[in-house]
Amino acid sequence: MNFADRLLDAIAEKGSSICVGIDPMYDALPDAIAGEKSKRDVNDAGKVIDHYYAFITEVLNLVAPYVPIVKFQSAYFEQYHSDGVDAYYSLIHEAKQLGLLVIGDAKRGDIGSTSAAYAAGHLGDFTGDDSDEYSSPDALTINPMLGMDAIEPFVSTALSLDKGLFVLVRTSNPGSKDFQDVKLDDGRSWSELVADTLSTRIESDKQYGRHGFSSLGAVVGATQTHTMVSMRKRLPKSIFLLPGYGTQGATGEMTKAAFDANGKGAIVSASRSILYPNSTGGDWREAIESAVHAMRADLEQFTKA
Amino acid sequence: MNFADRLLDAIAEKGSSICVGIDPMYDALPDAIAGEKSKRDVNDAGKVIDHYYAFITEVLNLVAPYVPIVKFQSAYFEQYHSDGVDAYYSLIHEAKQLGLLVIGDAKRGDIGSTSAAYAAGHLGDFTGDDSDEYSSPDALTINPMLGMDAIEPFVSTALSLDKGLFVLVRTSNPGSKDFQDVKLDDGRSWSELVADTLSTRIESDKQYGRHGFSSLGAVVGATQTHTMVSMRKRLPKSIFLLPGYGTQGATGEMTKAAFDANGKGAIVSASRSILYPNSTGGDWREAIESAVHAMRADLEQFTKA
Repeated sequence: MNFADRLLDAIAEKGSSICVGIDPMYDALPDAIAGEKSKRDVNDAGKVIDHYYAFITEVLNLVAPYVPIVKFQSAYFEQYHSDGVDAYYSLIHEAKQLGLLVIGDAKRGDIGSTSAAYAAGHLGDFTGDDSDEYSSPDALTINPMLGMDAIEPFVSTALSLDKGLFVLVRTSNPGSKDFQDVKLDDGRSWSELVADTLSTRIESDKQYGRHGFSSLGAVVGATQTHTMVSMRKRLPKSIFLLPGYGTQGATGEMTKAAFDANGKGAIVSASRSILYPNSTGGDWREAIESAVHAMRADLEQFTKA
Repeated sequence: MNFADRLLDAIAEKGSSICVGIDPMYDALPDAIAGEKSKRDVNDAGKVIDHYYAFITEVLNLVAPYVPIVKFQSAYFEQYHSDGVDAYYSLIHEAKQLGLLVIGDAKRGDIGSTSAAYAAGHLGDFTGDDSDEYSSPDALTINPMLGMDAIEPFVSTALSLDKGLFVLVRTSNPGSKDFQDVKLDDGRSWSELVADTLSTRIESDKQYGRHGFSSLGAVVGATQTHTMVSMRKRLPKSIFLLPGYGTQGATGEMTKAAFDANGKGAIVSASRSILYPNSTGGDWREAIESAVHAMRADLEQFTKA
């Protein structure tokens, strides 16, 4: 089944459009997992990774009943080189065993022949004995700066494997204004050009699923409310991945324009506000569950048709 | 010593502005290394990686006397997950042992907190026993799409470690026209805006080396001759990394405008045309050496003041 349908089915099943961002940060781990913050040794990569396994396994089990999808931020794993990359694909395997869909947030992009290697590595299935231990994500974030010939190998690999892509169109950080919000001589912003070009590509082969959406989605920062209506209009067939909820400042109401009239078509991603809620000495597992429930209640007002 | 000075010293010492791109492609390896092409098993990751070690070690030894710097393309290593990442940092260590400078071509870019993790992982030094076996590159390519707050963590990490960056400004692929060549309402192209913004950042702290260049360089496709004069003018303090020579179609003459009046300020990168020259049954090592010498002769006409 294509990625868009799998995602929209999972949203319906879990009754939630939340994507939990798996951003492991050693300093922020609960003391119960990694010991007192002041005593941690960030240079002991083996220990850091052991704690990431313990923490993320617990987090995945805590959130799996309530959310359809999680997003692994590759940077925090790459930071620990091959051990971190091992943990990335191994923990993605655990997430999938729990019935979660997984986005690999790697933001890759390069010239065509190189993008093909990235697509094969990041989206290709593991084979042989490795397939019992590792999995690749169901979808990948990609960076469109290099142009459509750089995106195409990701598209063909993703679609051939029933996987998805989320193309960066407008990011959630304040600096996204620098190069994405600039106006072109035809009046569109640069992000609007990217959105229109992506939409033309999507309409060229009309590979829509049962729910009417393409597996080629878009990243649009939930913090960027002034762009949301335009983006939704320009990319009617794309599922939006909306980062920036919580710590970065976006609220449920700010995501409203990303959803269609049926409350469909977007997932809202939160990382730090779910993983590291400011709990005052209480149980860290309960704090994470509370954070998920609070976000669910906040979004429900806007995603129900 | 800062990266810009180390690079310009190495160029002077080797008498060459060539950067050899280390892009291992299993199908293209010499039969003498990996056996007959028709019998290779691309799914046996362990064997592929063994052959990459053998091939790249030979290539590094062949080119080290003639070139100042090599560029490892991360994608071709990531394709083989943690084993590939292990090979990446291990072979970068070998290159540095041979006196070569190394660029990690990873084109990373993300929001600030995540860019900090990428910078720490990709540019941070290995510690303890690992430092005998692995090294991080001397410089990293980064993608500026997300904005200056996404670039800043790379800058502070790189400069604090005497390392360098090459920011994508105009890439070498045909599709770079899609989103980089577009005109803004002020008449500049999008790439020119990126170049100007980067230049402003460079001038803000004027950290120039002995040779007068910054360690914050720029990637400008050697294929993009119509942009070269403008880019050189906008980024007078940046060393240019010029990909696209050879297989992608650029020639020595096309790189001329990237060099200053003293024949300085740029390195020309070639990957496939050096690693996999079309030899007709001759010795593959000799073919690689010949390709390096031919490229050297071609560039020499334009880089000597």
